[in-house]
This record gives sequence, C-alpha cells and structure tokens, in this order.
Amino acid sequence: MDQDKALTAEELQNHVAAVFRDHMPFNQLLGMKISQFDQSGVEIRLPWHDGLMGNPIQKILHGGVTAAILDTAGGLMAILEAVRHMPQVNLVEFQKKISRMSTIDMRVDYLRPGKGEEFIATAKVIRKGSRVAVCRMELHNDAGEHIAFGTATYMVS
Amino acid sequence: MDQDKALTAEELQNHVAAVFRDHMPFNQLLGMKISQFDQSGVEIRLPWHDGLMGNPIQKILHGGVTAAILDTAGGLMAILEAVRHMPQVNLVEFQKKISRMSTIDMRVDYLRPGKGEEFIATAKVIRKGSRVAVCRMELHNDAGEHIAFGTATYMVS
Amino acid sequence: MDQDKALTAEELQNHVAAVFRDHMPFNQLLGMKISQFDQSGVEIRLPWHDGLMGNPIQKILHGGVTAAILDTAGGLMAILEAVRHMPQVNLVEFQKKISRMSTIDMRVDYLRPGKGEEFIATAKVIRKGSRVAVCRMELHNDAGEHIAFGTATYMVS
Amino acid sequence: MDQDKALTAEELQNHVAAVFRDHMPFNQLLGMKISQFDQSGVEIRLPWHDGLMGNPIQKILHGGVTAAILDTAGGLMAILEAVRHMPQVNLVEFQKKISRMSTIDMRVDYLRPGKGEEFIATAKVIRKGSRVAVCRMELHNDAGEHIAFGTATYMVS
Repeated sequence: MDQDKALTAEELQNHVAAVFRDHMPFNQLLGMKISQFDQSGVEIRLPWHDGLMGNPIQKILHGGVTAAILDTAGGLMAILEAVRHMPQVNLVEFQKKISRMSTIDMRVDYLRPGKGEEFIATAKVIRKGSRVAVCRMELHNDAGEHIAFGTATYMVS
Repeated sequence: MDQDKALTAEELQNHVAAVFRDHMPFNQLLGMKISQFDQSGVEIRLPWHDGLMGNPIQKILHGGVTAAILDTAGGLMAILEAVRHMPQVNLVEFQKKISRMSTIDMRVDYLRPGKGEEFIATAKVIRKGSRVAVCRMELHNDAGEHIAFGTATYMVS
Repeated sequence: MDQDKALTAEELQNHVAAVFRDHMPFNQLLGMKISQFDQSGVEIRLPWHDGLMGNPIQKILHGGVTAAILDTAGGLMAILEAVRHMPQVNLVEFQKKISRMSTIDMRVDYLRPGKGEEFIATAKVIRKGSRVAVCRMELHNDAGEHIAFGTATYMVS
Repeated sequence: MDQDKALTAEELQNHVAAVFRDHMPFNQLLGMKISQFDQSGVEIRLPWHDGLMGNPIQKILHGGVTAAILDTAGGLMAILEAVRHMPQVNLVEFQKKISRMSTIDMRVDYLRPGKGEEFIATAKVIRKGSRVAVCRMELHNDAGEHIAFGTATYMVS
C-alpha cells in the first residue's frame, strides 16, 4: 500500500481490522474477533472459554470481559464515525489520528448472567460529532439472550 | 474447616481470597492479585504484561482491563459490605449468599493513558445497605498517577 | 376507597397519578403531566415555558430539566415493575412500599439541544426484579427529535 | 465594559455570574445561587422550599433537583476549565465560546434522602482538556450530610 496515497474506505477498514487482530494482544488474550466492520455496523464475536470465567459456581463471564467487549465494539464504531469526518488521509495521517482516540467514559448495565457458547457485541452511534462521539452497545449470547447494555463517550479527534 | 460452624471474619476473608485466586480463571488470565482485603479496605495489584495492551502504538492498558480491575475491586468491597449485614453464617450459607451477588451497573472514567509497571486498584463504599451497595474505585499506576475512576452498584443479597 | 381492601391495578394507577399531580410540588413547578401510566408503558409530557430555559442564547431546556423528566418517567416505570411483584396490597401497605422506593443512580446522555414546544419522556424496564429495577428512558420533542437518553437503577422494595 | 477589550479573569467570572443570575430562568425557578466561582473552586447554594419536594411523605428533594444542581455546579467548573485554555478573549468571543459548551453525559449517585434547610453543591475537574472536561460534583446539606455524587463530561470548545 502506497503510504502517501489517500486511503479508500475499504483500505481504512482493512487496516483497522489488521491492527485489531495483530497488534492488540488483549483482544487475542480474550479471543475477540471482528465479524463485521463497515459503514452498516460493527459486530465482535467472542467464543466462550474457561479463561473468561468470573464466577466459579455459575460458569459465567467475568464482568470485566463484558465491559471489555462492549468498549471494544463502541471504540470501533467511534472509529467509523471519526472516518466520516476525515478529509482524505493517507496511512500515516490516519494512524496519527487513530492513536489520539480514546474512551472518555463508559457505563455498563448488566442485565442477566453471561452464559453461552458465544457472545456477540454490536454498537451504534447515538451522538455524532467531529470531536466526540457517544455510542450504545449491546451484548447478546448465541441463544439471542440480551446479556448487557453499554453506553460510552469517545474522543474521536 | 467445619462446614457447619459459623465463620469468623478472618475465615470469610481467607475463603474469598482463595476462591479469587484458585477458582476465577479470568483473574489469573490478567494476573490480578489481592494485596489487601479486610475491614479497613480492598487493594488489587496487576503487574504490566504485554497481554494487557490495548493500544499498540502507545503501549497502554486496554480499557477493558481497566474496567475489569475496577469492577473486581468494587465487587470485593461489596462482599465486605455484605458480610457486615450477615448474621453468623457457615461456609455453605456464605457461598450461597455470595453466588447471588452481582454487578448491576458500573461507570468508568478514563483520566489518563494506562501506562506503568504495575497498577493498583482500591475501593470504598459510598452507599451502604443490606440489599444494594454502591462503591467508588480508583486505579493508580506504580508512579502514583491516577489512571481511572469507577463507580458501581452491586446487588449484595 | 376502603383502605383495607386490596387495590386493583387500576386503583393503584389512579392513586399514583393523583399523588404525582397533587402532592409532588416539583412536578407542578416544571409543569410535568402523566399522559400514560399503565402496564403497556409510561409517558410524561412537559410543555415548554421560559422557566425551563437553561441557555439564554439558544432558548433550550436546562440540562437539569431533562434529567428531572427522565428520572420521573423511569421512577414511574419502576413503580409499575414493583406492582408486578406485589402480593395483593391495600392502600396503606402500598403507600408504605412506595415510600421506600428511590433512585439509586442515573446516567443521562444529552444528544441534541432541548428545543421544542413540548417534550415527551418514555421509559421501559431493562432489568426486572423484586428488589432492584433498571430502566431506560428517552426524551423527544414534539417534532419527534431525540433529545436525550437516560438509564437509571431503582430500589423497588 | 469595552466589548473589544480582552477580558480579565475577574471580568469573565462576573459576566458568567450575571448571566447565571439574570438570564437562566430555571436557576431562579429553583432558587440556585452562586456562592463561589473562581479558580479555587465552585459552590452553589439552594435553600429548601416546598416547590423542590419530590416525595410528599418524607419531604425530600426531587431527584431531578439534585441532578440539576449537580449539573450546574459541574458546568460552571467546566467553564473555568475552558477559560484556562482560552487565549485572551473579548466579551463577544467569550459569549460565542460559552454558547457552544454543553453537557455530554452525567451520572448521579443518590446516597441518602435529600433532607435539609439548604443544599450546597461543589465541583472539581478530574479530566482536563481543551475540548472535553470531566468533573466530579458533590451535594451536601447544611448539616454536612453527603446527599449525592455526580460525574459529568462536558464539551468545552
């Protein structure tokens, strides 16, 4: 990829997905995978494994795992929102912008015990902006049960 | 330990610490250790390792790790609060009560990038009660910098 | 109404609506009115008047008004949830139960400036329970624009 | 005051206090008064009157009043934070900047019933910045009892 060339939307998305997969070790530690990442939405999948267990009696997700996957889904959605406000950027400029993004605050509402074979997090933007974006996230299990809600505010520039 | 005998405060604390260490795999996956857990307070320590990395460029904690350690510190504090409201209980009764406890909601405020060799989470109760407790948590690094605040509401019975 | 007689669902709802209207002065100070309050949902309406103005330049709702109407809609929804878990109660018992209900915590997300001729708040329960209920609330204006989201945790017994 | 002249810190503070008092009707509807507003901190006072009552049985503050006074204290603190990041501004420029400020989100934790003759809200900045500031607020009554905590994120430019 020519580093001085303005990136297409697809190239940006592929770049983010590659960074997520190859350079964010915590995502691998948990086993999170991006299953959707484009203008129509974000979806992250996390298969159950015993390392995610927070409650030894009930075999359910640790609350911190729930928070982590919700923050990750919201953060990816915030990147998509940031991209919408970017002029044409090349790879170096994009990386610089992305490295300045961060979560400002997040609320998680735990609705029911995190039981399941797989967990699916989705996100949408509820407050758009060039500097700050607010996202709402949902976590469901593979049986379609709603495990948790999240709401988070992101610095996007 | 005689399972029918009422537990002393010290036995309860030792039991919780043992469960935390031996039966909550996610705590080990991250590397969290209880460094204090008694009526005067709760402290959890987490040494940095690359698996916790959320941002490949800045080498900082994943926001989900911050949320996980804050929720864990608050949850332990909520157990101490629950114990205060318990009549004398034996081990089986205690385990039953503890297994019904859960996080209802949590807010995390990310104050600065999570850089450091070790991270220390502390917690205090701001709303006491026999059914619901609200805790405030703080995360600092080994240099004393304040990384994040948390506020969480726990079901304690 | 015979005070010893078990209340019907309709009598409970009428009683709550009367208390809201006649004995909660702040609701009148703002001008909030219950436009729906039954098992199918809650709706509160608030017509604009200059006393609600928080920003003199833009003529928009004070953020505290937004918080107040969202908390009120969520609180009424939590009462409906509490009623579902109540055995048959007479008026005195009901009043005693209701007086113990309270908001534990609330998050408000301000999405756009609060402009309009009238504001409509709605609520739904996202975590049900006999002791704690969590509600999500929305505020729209009369043009259908979405002004704010709320999420609140209520003690219901 | 010469509208083209750069404002001193004192002139800015006096201007904000005058707008608060004379042009924000909701502040008067409640009866909120600024008792401190300078670089060392913010304090707002609200004397009890029956119009603030949310619970007719216990004679306590409506939860919306608590949210309103906390948001107001935090918003004033965010203005002070914004001023720190402003170059020399004249009155017109300052008004333009201030009119773009807004609350993004807020969490309120209700600790105990809002009883008292007077209520005092204070605020401090926990995350500083030229675009976004996060504040923590506290509400006490005249007997020194702690009624509520708040945490809010503000757009400051």
